[in-house]
Order: sequence, then structure tokens, then C-alpha cells
Amino acid sequence: MRESEVLQIIRAAVAKAGDDAAILPFGETNLLLTTDMLHRTTDFPDGASPYTIGWRSVAVSLSDLAAMGARPLAVLLALGDPDLAERFIRGVLAGARACCAAAGTDLVGGDIDQHSELTVVGSALGEAANPVRRSGAGAGDLVCVTGELGSTQTALRLFATGAHERANALFCFSPRVEWGESLAPFATSMVDISDGLAHSLHLLARESRVGCSIEEALLPVIPDLVQTIPQEARSDAILFGGEDYELLFTLPEADLKMVSPIVSFRVIGRVVCSGVRLDGQDLPDQGWEHGG
Amino acid sequence: MRESEVLQIIRAAVAKAGDDAAILPFGETNLLLTTDMLHRTTDFPDGASPYTIGWRSVAVSLSDLAAMGARPLAVLLALGDPDLAERFIRGVLAGARACCAAAGTDLVGGDIDQHSELTVVGSALGEAANPVRRSGAGAGDLVCVTGELGSTQTALRLFATGAHERANALFCFSPRVEWGESLAPFATSMVDISDGLAHSLHLLARESRVGCSIEEALLPVIPDLVQTIPQEARSDAILFGGEDYELLFTLPEADLKMVSPIVSFRVIGRVVCSGVRLDGQDLPDQGWEHGG
Repeated sequence: MRESEVLQIIRAAVAKAGDDAAILPFGETNLLLTTDMLHRTTDFPDGASPYTIGWRSVAVSLSDLAAMGARPLAVLLALGDPDLAERFIRGVLAGARACCAAAGTDLVGGDIDQHSELTVVGSALGEAANPVRRSGAGAGDLVCVTGELGSTQTALRLFATGAHERANALFCFSPRVEWGESLAPFATSMVDISDGLAHSLHLLARESRVGCSIEEALLPVIPDLVQTIPQEARSDAILFGGEDYELLFTLPEADLKMVSPIVSFRVIGRVVCSGVRLDGQDLPDQGWEHGG
Repeated sequence: MRESEVLQIIRAAVAKAGDDAAILPFGETNLLLTTDMLHRTTDFPDGASPYTIGWRSVAVSLSDLAAMGARPLAVLLALGDPDLAERFIRGVLAGARACCAAAGTDLVGGDIDQHSELTVVGSALGEAANPVRRSGAGAGDLVCVTGELGSTQTALRLFATGAHERANALFCFSPRVEWGESLAPFATSMVDISDGLAHSLHLLARESRVGCSIEEALLPVIPDLVQTIPQEARSDAILFGGEDYELLFTLPEADLKMVSPIVSFRVIGRVVCSGVRLDGQDLPDQGWEHGG
């Protein structure tokens, strides 16, 4: 079965799953929970350092919290590895702790086990008085994206060609936790672009029962991508290549001046009544199936 | 490296890890978090049903919350599997949800991924105003254990001999969540017996800077064990066989009459100044290394 079909079964079985993180009302606020499984064959190319492996395993879950506008409270890490070599474990933990610290939170516990394949499961707990859902976009809102696209696809090319140092740096992406929190009072809908921009636009459109119309010329792209990926492959890398972990969000135009000083983002289009279009053409819901 | 050595590194790297679950002060209460990785080769013998796999993956984390006297709030499940067959996934989720329901909580989300080996990571969130630590036992307290010992060791024998139906039933242990909550106001220290009774006694003694003296004749044992395991192997199975997931706790004698009506348990000995002894003989700190 494809992951997307299995996820449908899980969604049906698990009432509250449907956003980037589960929302639990708790007192006068909400607790948010998310978990992600990453493993060697799918998520960590040859050349990825232990530090990068630890960083990224935590970052994908923190990115889920960021996409809900939540403040992270704590992170757990379950680690399986064939060798359990001390140097490797120390590297993974150092990367995981550094990513937690960068997001203002802590690694508070975990589990470890001998395993046939390197497998890392990060789980993150956050808090948000008003979490941002996928379902609030309204026609006329601006469609926006934080930072720059293309880091992961560029890093994968660089790992393949042996440029491991730059590849590791790009692979250690910053979960947009602070920006997510700043956006929470304004954004009408938000996701992280974990499965590619095209798929994320379709997600927002479907959950909000609207459409999106964006322009390719407005998409922010990292300079490394232009130098690394041949021109004919760039569009696909940006639109359908996954695991960018920038935030895709919608914003009423009136709030643009509130958000511009505190978050680095670009307006890439507008919410429309129906359809997902790039430069006026239908953009297929082509995704990226992965382990994050 | 042995798991126990790796756990030492993790403990040093992760300040708050040291009890069954991490404790996060939150408002006027505490949030508790725990995660456990289980996988095919280590944790699921041939004959374990999908339902049992799901149940047990959730139960080990709920047992960690029970050992802190916490109320479970939510559970997450990350699942990796080579085939992702629909019937199998549905079975795992049914077992996981049933275990959550039995403990008064819900499966709220998860992740799924194709993986070379069946791997399940449960994470649980709980709440406790006054979590029970491992470190509060005082000389003179009673040493007590809930329920009956030997379920997992008996189940493993039954799986090996093909008696799968009874083995699956024994393997789906009840996390002692309700008893843990009832004990929280009274118990001076508590753990779950995930790594064997002897090791758990040593844990409590070390963390509380005391000793324990217990009597073998007082240990409660499931009838199945007597029928299944030859007499010469029974002591080892009970003392050093792991994954019983009953609660081992210490209790001031004055509170015995408060706890007796609400929790099913046996007094098996007494907290002493130093040493861990069975029938007056030193009991070695022999553990059970596992994936839970």
C-alpha cells in the first residue's frame, strides 16, 4: 500500500489527526503533540553526519509545531542503531540537543535500542492558545512562504556528488518555530512544506475548501539550488521536491504590515475560490513520500 | 556498547531523564512524557498478532506513566513496516486504540513509514500534580508489588511452543494506570518492573539511597507460570525475567489500610538501610536488556 493510503486509514482510526500536530485542549490552552519516524534508507543519505542525523530527527517534529504556531515545551528521541557506537550516539545527541536549543526547548528523554537499521523517532510537545489549522484560508487572502525553498533537494544533490560539508549544513534546516509563533495571531491557515510545495498548496486548498493561485517568478529559492541543480530540473525540485520545512501560510492582506517586520517571508500568490494554479495553469497534486 | 552504557551517556546528555518519564512543570501541575521503541527481532516473537503488537507498543509507554502515578492524556504511535499491508495496519491500530481506551486515553496521532523491520514507537503524555519518583523510599517502608509476576516470561514460552492464543492474551498486559494514580498520594517511590524484579529493586534502592529485603515466598506469581515453566527455571524467570510491567512501590506501613481497598498488591518485603536481599541473601543486579 502507498503511504498516503495508509495515512487515510490512520486518519480514520485516529479522530484528531489531520493537522501537522494533534491538538489537546488543556486548561485554558492547548497542548500539541507530534511524532516522526526517520531511518537510514529513506532519510539519511551517505555522508550525513551523526550531528545532522540528530538535528534533523528533532527538527522535523519541531517544524510540525511551528506549522501550528505552537511554542515547543519538550522533545523526546527514540533511537535504534546496529552498532550503538559511543562516538556516533554522542554526535546524534549533540545534534538533537543543538536543534532543541535553537528552538528554545530541551531534549528531556528518550529510548535506545539495538536495531537492524538506524531509526530515529522524534516526538515533540508544544503549547498554543490558538493553534493555526489548515482549514481557515479565505478567498482573497495572500499565499505566503517563509525563508527560501530548495534546501533539501540541493543537499541531496550535494550528498550524491560528495560535497558533504555544504550538504550537511543545508540538511540541518532551522524549524521555523519563532516565525510560526509570530504568525499565529494573523495567519488564517498554515502547514510546513514537508511533502513539497504543490502538495502543501493542495492540502491547504482542500482543508479550507478554497483554491490557490501562485506565480513561479515569486517563489524564493536558495542560491545554492541555482548553482547545483540544472535549469531543466529546477522547477520540479522547487514545486514537487519535498522536505523543505518552510512554512506555507495564508494571510489577510490587511495584516501584511503587521507581519512583515517580524517574519521573513514572500507573498507568492492569492487564495481563490477553487483550483490550485501556477501561472494560470493547473498544478498537479504531486507529492513526495518520505519518512518525516 | 551495551544498552545500559548507552543509557548512561543519554542520562548525562539529557538532564531530566532518570525516572520512568520526564517531568515538565506546567502551570500548577506537571506534564510527563515518555517514549519507547519496540521492534520485531527484540520485542515481537513469532505468533504475536497485529492486535498484540499495537496493544503492547502503547502499553509499555502507559506503564511508564503509571509508574509515576500520572493520568494519561494522549498517545502517539510511529510505525515502520516492510509491507504496510492494510489488514496488518488495521490490526495494530485496533490493538493500540483498545489499550489506550482501557487506560482512559486516546491515540491522537502518529506517523507511518516503509521500513526494513517492523518498528513501533509509542509516546505518551500524562499529567500528575505530584509525580512519584524513584528516590523517596525510607527505611522501614513496606516493599510492594501490584498484580502477579511472570506474564511475559510465560508468554514467551507459550509463543515458542505454539500456544499462541494464550500467549497473545498474556502479552497484552494491562498498564497499571488506575492503580498508579491511586498509589500516587501514598507511595514513597515507584517504578514499573520493565527490566526484571531484581533490577527494579536495585534501581529503587540506589535512587533512594536505601536497601530492600524481600522474601521469595511472598512473591505473587501467575498460575500459568507454574504450569508452563519447569520448577528449576521459575525463580530466574520471576526475579530476572523482564517486562512484567507490574508496579514495584514502597509504602509507609501506616498507609497500608488506605491503599489495600483500592489497589490489588502484595507486600513482599521491607526497605532497609542498605543492600538488596532475597531471603537474607544478596540479590544480584541482573537485568533484562530489551527494547521497551
